[in-house]
Amino acid sequence: MSEEIRLDFQRPDRIGFDEAILCARKSDEQLATIMDRVLERGARCLMSRLELGVFARIAPRYLEKLDYDPVSRTAYLNWTPSTLEERPLIAVVSAGSSDMPQAAETIRTLTYLGAPTKQFIDIGVAGLWRLLERVEELRTFPVIVAVAGMDGALPSVLGGLVPGAIICLPTSTGYGVANGGETALHAALASCAPGLTVVNIDNGYGAACAAFRILSMIRQTGTSPLERGPQ
Amino acid sequence: MSEEIRLDFQRPDRIGFDEAILCARKSDEQLATIMDRVLERGARCLMSRLELGVFARIAPRYLEKLDYDPVSRTAYLNWTPSTLEERPLIAVVSAGSSDMPQAAETIRTLTYLGAPTKQFIDIGVAGLWRLLERVEELRTFPVIVAVAGMDGALPSVLGGLVPGAIICLPTSTGYGVANGGETALHAALASCAPGLTVVNIDNGYGAACAAFRILSMIRQTGTSPLERGPQ
Amino acid sequence: MSEEIRLDFQRPDRIGFDEAILCARKSDEQLATIMDRVLERGARCLMSRLELGVFARIAPRYLEKLDYDPVSRTAYLNWTPSTLEERPLIAVVSAGSSDMPQAAETIRTLTYLGAPTKQFIDIGVAGLWRLLERVEELRTFPVIVAVAGMDGALPSVLGGLVPGAIICLPTSTGYGVANGGETALHAALASCAPGLTVVNIDNGYGAACAAFRILSMIRQTGTSPLERGPQ
Amino acid sequence: MSEEIRLDFQRPDRIGFDEAILCARKSDEQLATIMDRVLERGARCLMSRLELGVFARIAPRYLEKLDYDPVSRTAYLNWTPSTLEERPLIAVVSAGSSDMPQAAETIRTLTYLGAPTKQFIDIGVAGLWRLLERVEELRTFPVIVAVAGMDGALPSVLGGLVPGAIICLPTSTGYGVANGGETALHAALASCAPGLTVVNIDNGYGAACAAFRILSMIRQTGTSPLERGPQ
Amino acid sequence: MSEEIRLDFQRPDRIGFDEAILCARKSDEQLATIMDRVLERGARCLMSRLELGVFARIAPRYLEKLDYDPVSRTAYLNWTPSTLEERPLIAVVSAGSSDMPQAAETIRTLTYLGAPTKQFIDIGVAGLWRLLERVEELRTFPVIVAVAGMDGALPSVLGGLVPGAIICLPTSTGYGVANGGETALHAALASCAPGLTVVNIDNGYGAACAAFRILSMIRQTGTSPLERGPQ
Amino acid sequence: MSEEIRLDFQRPDRIGFDEAILCARKSDEQLATIMDRVLERGARCLMSRLELGVFARIAPRYLEKLDYDPVSRTAYLNWTPSTLEERPLIAVVSAGSSDMPQAAETIRTLTYLGAPTKQFIDIGVAGLWRLLERVEELRTFPVIVAVAGMDGALPSVLGGLVPGAIICLPTSTGYGVANGGETALHAALASCAPGLTVVNIDNGYGAACAAFRILSMIRQTGTSPLERGPQ
Amino acid sequence: MSEEIRLDFQRPDRIGFDEAILCARKSDEQLATIMDRVLERGARCLMSRLELGVFARIAPRYLEKLDYDPVSRTAYLNWTPSTLEERPLIAVVSAGSSDMPQAAETIRTLTYLGAPTKQFIDIGVAGLWRLLERVEELRTFPVIVAVAGMDGALPSVLGGLVPGAIICLPTSTGYGVANGGETALHAALASCAPGLTVVNIDNGYGAACAAFRILSMIRQTGTSPLERGPQ
Amino acid sequence: MSEEIRLDFQRPDRIGFDEAILCARKSDEQLATIMDRVLERGARCLMSRLELGVFARIAPRYLEKLDYDPVSRTAYLNWTPSTLEERPLIAVVSAGSSDMPQAAETIRTLTYLGAPTKQFIDIGVAGLWRLLERVEELRTFPVIVAVAGMDGALPSVLGGLVPGAIICLPTSTGYGVANGGETALHAALASCAPGLTVVNIDNGYGAACAAFRILSMIRQTGTSPLERGPQ
Repeated sequence: MSEEIRLDFQRPDRIGFDEAILCARKSDEQLATIMDRVLERGARCLMSRLELGVFARIAPRYLEKLDYDPVSRTAYLNWTPSTLEERPLIAVVSAGSSDMPQAAETIRTLTYLGAPTKQFIDIGVAGLWRLLERVEELRTFPVIVAVAGMDGALPSVLGGLVPGAIICLPTSTGYGVANGGETALHAALASCAPGLTVVNIDNGYGAACAAFRILSMIRQTGTSPLERGPQ
Repeated sequence: MSEEIRLDFQRPDRIGFDEAILCARKSDEQLATIMDRVLERGARCLMSRLELGVFARIAPRYLEKLDYDPVSRTAYLNWTPSTLEERPLIAVVSAGSSDMPQAAETIRTLTYLGAPTKQFIDIGVAGLWRLLERVEELRTFPVIVAVAGMDGALPSVLGGLVPGAIICLPTSTGYGVANGGETALHAALASCAPGLTVVNIDNGYGAACAAFRILSMIRQTGTSPLERGPQ
Repeated sequence: MSEEIRLDFQRPDRIGFDEAILCARKSDEQLATIMDRVLERGARCLMSRLELGVFARIAPRYLEKLDYDPVSRTAYLNWTPSTLEERPLIAVVSAGSSDMPQAAETIRTLTYLGAPTKQFIDIGVAGLWRLLERVEELRTFPVIVAVAGMDGALPSVLGGLVPGAIICLPTSTGYGVANGGETALHAALASCAPGLTVVNIDNGYGAACAAFRILSMIRQTGTSPLERGPQ
Repeated sequence: MSEEIRLDFQRPDRIGFDEAILCARKSDEQLATIMDRVLERGARCLMSRLELGVFARIAPRYLEKLDYDPVSRTAYLNWTPSTLEERPLIAVVSAGSSDMPQAAETIRTLTYLGAPTKQFIDIGVAGLWRLLERVEELRTFPVIVAVAGMDGALPSVLGGLVPGAIICLPTSTGYGVANGGETALHAALASCAPGLTVVNIDNGYGAACAAFRILSMIRQTGTSPLERGPQ
Repeated sequence: MSEEIRLDFQRPDRIGFDEAILCARKSDEQLATIMDRVLERGARCLMSRLELGVFARIAPRYLEKLDYDPVSRTAYLNWTPSTLEERPLIAVVSAGSSDMPQAAETIRTLTYLGAPTKQFIDIGVAGLWRLLERVEELRTFPVIVAVAGMDGALPSVLGGLVPGAIICLPTSTGYGVANGGETALHAALASCAPGLTVVNIDNGYGAACAAFRILSMIRQTGTSPLERGPQ
Repeated sequence: MSEEIRLDFQRPDRIGFDEAILCARKSDEQLATIMDRVLERGARCLMSRLELGVFARIAPRYLEKLDYDPVSRTAYLNWTPSTLEERPLIAVVSAGSSDMPQAAETIRTLTYLGAPTKQFIDIGVAGLWRLLERVEELRTFPVIVAVAGMDGALPSVLGGLVPGAIICLPTSTGYGVANGGETALHAALASCAPGLTVVNIDNGYGAACAAFRILSMIRQTGTSPLERGPQ
Repeated sequence: MSEEIRLDFQRPDRIGFDEAILCARKSDEQLATIMDRVLERGARCLMSRLELGVFARIAPRYLEKLDYDPVSRTAYLNWTPSTLEERPLIAVVSAGSSDMPQAAETIRTLTYLGAPTKQFIDIGVAGLWRLLERVEELRTFPVIVAVAGMDGALPSVLGGLVPGAIICLPTSTGYGVANGGETALHAALASCAPGLTVVNIDNGYGAACAAFRILSMIRQTGTSPLERGPQ
Repeated sequence: MSEEIRLDFQRPDRIGFDEAILCARKSDEQLATIMDRVLERGARCLMSRLELGVFARIAPRYLEKLDYDPVSRTAYLNWTPSTLEERPLIAVVSAGSSDMPQAAETIRTLTYLGAPTKQFIDIGVAGLWRLLERVEELRTFPVIVAVAGMDGALPSVLGGLVPGAIICLPTSTGYGVANGGETALHAALASCAPGLTVVNIDNGYGAACAAFRILSMIRQTGTSPLERGPQ
């Protein structure tokens, strides 16, 4: 089986960040092979959707190289924290404690990529005051990830109040016509607030990568202001 | 054909308001027969979904008995305004001018039934200040009909701010995943705000009837306070 | 984790009733934190969708403060019954024993909120006589919650027979094209009976809140008849 | 084009009734060819979904052989009425005038096949009295076709009251979540009343054929009581 | 709990057969109560969707009164076989062994009701010869229940070959776009073969009741040929 | 506008056949530009979904280069028939005259590509004899395109009778739950007959290209038998 | 009617760009009123989804103030081009000429907002060379709008090749299971390429606003490199 | 039960390959009966969807006759490898290790049928270089099975690069709007690349049968070049 896996180590050169391993639907053997490959090369890697039960079966020799977080179901393999000091430019806003796993996946992915974040929780529209008292602060972030399930009303309200890029992360929280996140997804896509963008339901990893793409472009310009661009 | 139609003139005795005629899909002949029946009996009737083109073909002998409004596509047949003076207890709140026809259908139906309303327009969440500056007034209404299409975020925000009964009227405004009103409908049903109720997409008539049922119960109690109830 | 939760204790001031805790998808730790917060403050709270298995893991120190009901999967924390004597103004009507959990969630929520209810069971349309012999009594209730799964025909029949406000609570009872409650939901929304309102599938809590909003408006008027309304 | 059409003149021998021509999506030339084939053979044929506009373009030489009805959009080609005297054994029950075209298609098809019908109209459940006062009569029919759109509650109520075979014909009447007849279809299929059967949305022709199959089996037994059956 | 259940013992008088108990979603206590009610009255009853695991928990005092079949998941309570000798008039045709449970539910229900059946298995269209060699025999049955999952092609082929009433029972067999039986359901409803009728997915009980309704009408006529009908 | 279009003239080198122009949604100007490009280069091209109304507006200077067929809505630009003599290896089988446009699009596309076809019509399963009497001939074709709408039962029956490659072309014929071809599509995909393949609804062009890919591989082998394949 | 419209002139202060007018579903009177409001105030405005037929009815007094483009169906009211010289930082990439209207709406909106763009057309994956020969240039853009209908494969390929922010704009191009853009939407959301974001089907305006939000954040940083951020 | 199963041993004569047994939903007894039948006859058989847990319960007497593979969940009963030496003409291409089970089912089925295959893995479009460096080799295969989940972009890219027959096998890999494989299925069907064909989601067996049908036609021609075809 081990010869069947070809990791994409050139990805950072092409798109600016490295491949992550989606652990769902992979066998223990496949995961071990992947970790071997990464470690042989002295590389690092992010593992997503790594359930606690699967993590519990990982062999001890890998554990010392792994930084695991059960809420976000993510692990860092062979990772060292960035020493870069930068104020957080990405806000992660969520409506309630039910959306914590997805918000955590976004934050953990961005931390892995070296992008500090600031988290705002319990910012649901049903208690509008909790959102309103944070608006001024939220307006200072160039990128906001808005995590919301059920009716997904949070992004629409935010979108009319702040100027930054807004990435909506719909979650599968809810029941009945919440339809496993479809209603929150559709509400974000059909929002009356202009300029929202959206990622797949429960895709905290994707939301983080989208935020990181924007951050990279901002950093690039910060280093070399307004000199960038095609010839 | 005329013998094929049996109107339900006993409905007011059973449920407190009279039958309306849904004109969509009815032939000109069927409509004429219905109007004849109503007029013979000296009764009145509300006609809904009466398109301008259909209205234009109605014979002159009916026209003097008809009060037609093209925005709401409703007509009153043989109707005289209520002389009852009462402050409006029902607010009709809508997000934009695209939802005007549905809001108007609700208002016209309630007017027909003798229930005064107050309309609040352009109360969309993308411009939240327009909603916030009206909240105190909205809190005084026992019944609110919230008209919203696209992402349908308005009811969720309202539901966390006011104590009255809220009837959500989703509209087919929007395109793509707005899905002809389905997203607004689902967002209202899956709302994180507690105690919202919902009617069918574009069913301004139904929203009015639901509001009227509540109003009747309030009026009944107003006349005979706290004496009412089953034995 | 505990600092991550901000309860909305101001909700009663805004909308007339307090926040409930949806226990589904919350960890034991989150639930404990929430209960601590509520108890520290001397407040009360309703916990919904609290599965028996989760309840069984709750620490003894909370149990004496909890009133748990397994059918409705609800618990009252730090709650004392209302001493208000009032005849029930809300009827909860259901078609069969399969819909018991949802009907019970509605009743338990209303009891928590201080609103007495009367339950009518086995009122399905396939045995129409069971409905017909109760119609006169049902006509005396200002608010009816109609619980129905499968084809959801009950609300349409009721809606043509009684004048009160009707809140339809579709349930996920059934299989095949019952589609987890979607058919009952759509049947209620597309009903030929005028003025029905609808809540999300299996949302017994929401139906109760909607009923309570109407009841509050009626009580308000009962106290101060016809004096209420905007200036 | 004419050599491209092969009619199934042997169908009556196999299944007991002859092929009908679905005119929708057929060109004028195709229809003319089909009529020629039928007339050459001295046969007869039923044409369904023949829109008024298409009918108006049919050449005069066919018209004298055609019996056209615009409500049901059906035509009989080369047909002579049955001289058989039989009391109607099939009832066609519908809820409102909006469902008239589909009910009429069923009745016209059965008339063509030599099966007399009796029509019951305006039997909607929102005015239950109209149904209840006809129940005794409806109980005498061995076959009932129940035509209903919107919420499709009629079949469920009927199914609990009468012993005959019930064929539900859902119609596309309605808007919003009526979903072009899907809700009525699903309600009939998921009905709590036992033993209902269902045909496709707006398929008045199919409902008639299904009723005719049952009628044929009854007639066969009537002629040769209880002698029939496999050896 | 026991006072909450009201059985419909008058159903046979109204529609010709007695109420069955859908055991899915009922608690052990509810089932015991129902069985007590039936036995107290000396009545009989059919229990459907009674899973083996639930059956295994039934108290011994009921077991001697129960005739249980695990394939169909049905039990007869207090039932004695009919002594009526009649050749089977109902054929139950299925495509493969995966559809056995649904076919068995139909057969067991009809046996309970006193209607003998004949079963034809492995009659799938992918091996057309297995169907063709039974056609002549199938043509002698007045009622055929056609059980089919996946693509549901069997009813369309049958419908063009036999004159009897055909009740299609779509099953949830299959995966992917088989969509839990939806494709088989839709194929039966949209069939090019005229006069098929359809019941809900996996509703073997409903198919049996529909077949029994037709059988009753045939028997009635057999007893009193052509004398039956409305006055 | 003309500089905006870049045709893919290298496609034949890559995949063995040339690009076609889907005319739907293209403006008259865009079509003229494309035709100019093709003619300037002395190339040829197939135009699909060219409605009669659009064709009627094409300038005379193109018409002499165009071979248009209104049934299939296709045009050949600058095309000369193949002089290759070959027996047809591709059969196009359809159920009825309603599926003629899609069958014709397949045949016209294959003719354009130099692949002779044989058409079999009115091969629906509701008249099974029409299919059975052609089975032996159909078994001699290496490739069969099976065109079917409504219930899409034809491919399942065919798939159990013939050994060749079968490409199912579902059509949008039908109404109600035929769902614009979705039921026929799903029935072909979920078929119990092994080894069917499927193309998009109404995609006669795609079915032809798929058939042509197979034919090319057969021809290649015919020229150089069994020598082909990777080293 | 005119008093019913309240424009959101404060939007630029809140989110950095001004409100646009969605002309679909607005009456001529409503559009005139809006234009009056804008002109009275000396403001400017973008009008989207302004169909040619509606534009043709606009009164002459507005026309001199309007810059209309029929492909994108947009108009600029009282607008003067930006004099800012800046190299385009936003690329708009599309697969074919069928997606031109949506791509044009994005470009026109960005031009209105003062953001220069560069367009890349006919970059579909079926002719991969057209994409590959532009990759190096595309890699220099910080923001890319990827316009794609049908299977929506373009964004996935792009996402693995370039580091910039990618906004996917799915279009309703295609038929059958393309489902009016749903397949392209879902493919973009479920993409295996990390960090794509998505807007609603055919929402060229929304894609432009999303791109502009990112551009604004980049510009801000360019002006004041790395100084920005919350305190 | 054992007499209830009729295997289709004539299938190879009709369509060129033998019946497989779909083990899902079959009881242990049914499987044992089938194996007995096959072994009594000295025949062979392929068992698909045979879960490891079910396999573990198979009686020892069968095990020596069984060749089981847990990844593909297939077993060969009484099978001996083909001794035919032939270069692989079928390529099985997949995007990642999550699609391994479906790819393996295709390969195992083709091996059973005597058709050698070559597997290409990790050929996803997000790392386009992995696909591009194999294109020349892929162009030499007359048949390619393209296995892809999530966005299903692989077939569209392949379809523009190679001339062989392409059978798309969508998989249920992914979450959210991947919808259990529906998005991959729809993307393959709506592909802009011409001439792709598609099988049901996760139907590795069906993809193999489709490939084998084509291979048989090629082999037939290879043996008897260009002599084949109808008279």
